Amino acid sequence: MLKLYHYGDSLCSMKTRLCLLEKEVEFEPHFVDLMNWEHLTDSYKKLNPNSVVPTIVHDGTPIIESTVINQYIDEVFEGPSLTPGDPVARAKMRVWCKVQDDILHPAIQKPTFNLLLKPKLSKKTDEELDDWLSRHPLEKSRKLFRGAARGPVNEEALEDATRQFNFVFERMELALSEGDWLCGREYTLADVACAPILDRLGQCDWLNLFEPYPRLSEWSERIRGREAFKKMRPKDNQRFVNLDL
Amino acid sequence: MLKLYHYGDSLCSMKTRLCLLEKEVEFEPHFVDLMNWEHLTDSYKKLNPNSVVPTIVHDGTPIIESTVINQYIDEVFEGPSLTPGDPVARAKMRVWCKVQDDILHPAIQKPTFNLLLKPKLSKKTDEELDDWLSRHPLEKSRKLFRGAARGPVNEEALEDATRQFNFVFERMELALSEGDWLCGREYTLADVACAPILDRLGQCDWLNLFEPYPRLSEWSERIRGREAFKKMRPKDNQRFVNLDL
Repeated sequence: MLKLYHYGDSLCSMKTRLCLLEKEVEFEPHFVDLMNWEHLTDSYKKLNPNSVVPTIVHDGTPIIESTVINQYIDEVFEGPSLTPGDPVARAKMRVWCKVQDDILHPAIQKPTFNLLLKPKLSKKTDEELDDWLSRHPLEKSRKLFRGAARGPVNEEALEDATRQFNFVFERMELALSEGDWLCGREYTLADVACAPILDRLGQCDWLNLFEPYPRLSEWSERIRGREAFKKMRPKDNQRFVNLDL
Repeated sequence: MLKLYHYGDSLCSMKTRLCLLEKEVEFEPHFVDLMNWEHLTDSYKKLNPNSVVPTIVHDGTPIIESTVINQYIDEVFEGPSLTPGDPVARAKMRVWCKVQDDILHPAIQKPTFNLLLKPKLSKKTDEELDDWLSRHPLEKSRKLFRGAARGPVNEEALEDATRQFNFVFERMELALSEGDWLCGREYTLADVACAPILDRLGQCDWLNLFEPYPRLSEWSERIRGREAFKKMRPKDNQRFVNLDL
């Protein structure tokens, strides 16, 4: 029995849903309501001490960290292998997974905060905002959300995110000269890890960032044509922009 | 032929040296002079676009990212295996490697900057500092080093690092209730990844952080008793504190 604790509009949850769907692994979904701080409760922390989604629980054993989870799923379950047999290609795959974790993921949070959450939160009255934030256990995060709700768009953060994306996209474009996928001819966990940003960049109206990169644009079309990618996308009521926060 | 591009007092270089030494893999060391910004040169960036050490070049192919490098070394070379055969234990090992990358490594930079580099740099005259920094290609980093040389010790950063360490050490203490090593009975890449902080905490006089954690203290003694750990340590002229910057 495999349980997936996840949230719709969480990139790391999308990564793991995409991996499960590509391999056609059956799972029992458990919704974690990030927008009501369910990930910060003691009961969720018992599963995941980092207080983030996703977590999988396989036959009673919790496994955390989407990058680790996806490797585990690929190693343990049947279905098409998403890991290259060649050690050099495998190392390249792992580097792409790290690039997603270390560069793409922090970068995408900047437009997410400024372009998706801010317009939503800025419509709240002070009372509504206080009420919503009063249940958050961390003072630091309360400040962050309050800033997002009331402060101006952080143009510097958006420029910084753009620079980070271009730094990675140039490398992706180069990698894609060797085949249809990031590690060459095989569709791997590297493509699975990087695919969810396509959904979020679309939400932020930032897909034009791909224009200078013809191979990357084609990669993006190939990804979006996959059935698993279509099924992985969040339901409307789990989208930041459609939430009644 | 295996080449290792590394620096003595770099935690990630230590991780890879420790892995190579544990497996008794022969390698040709190439010193990268971080303190004179050699990692930021175009020729090094061709090997490693992230401009960090270490990089290995195996039969002409560069592999980057110490966590990825160590998995590659363990998979490709003979010697004792440092990866558990059981998939759950392997996932745990990968989570520890991520904890080292994502929490321990950023945390240790705070005492490194404030307790090792600052006292060293603060002795420089303005002219010496200007001369040293004038060769650095990045304005942002020049500011950072200038701040480290002239500003006061950042007590808040040190407190934050201490919190991060305790957050991880509590989890390590718990994990060590199941065996001598982080993944149980087997010494793995998880122990290899976390071991180098022992060297740095020692340099910073911060080893007393281990006092509340008896199992972690014993783990630390076991690690320090290993021949590979002793050989992995940097030479004096590659130590931040002993440099004639």
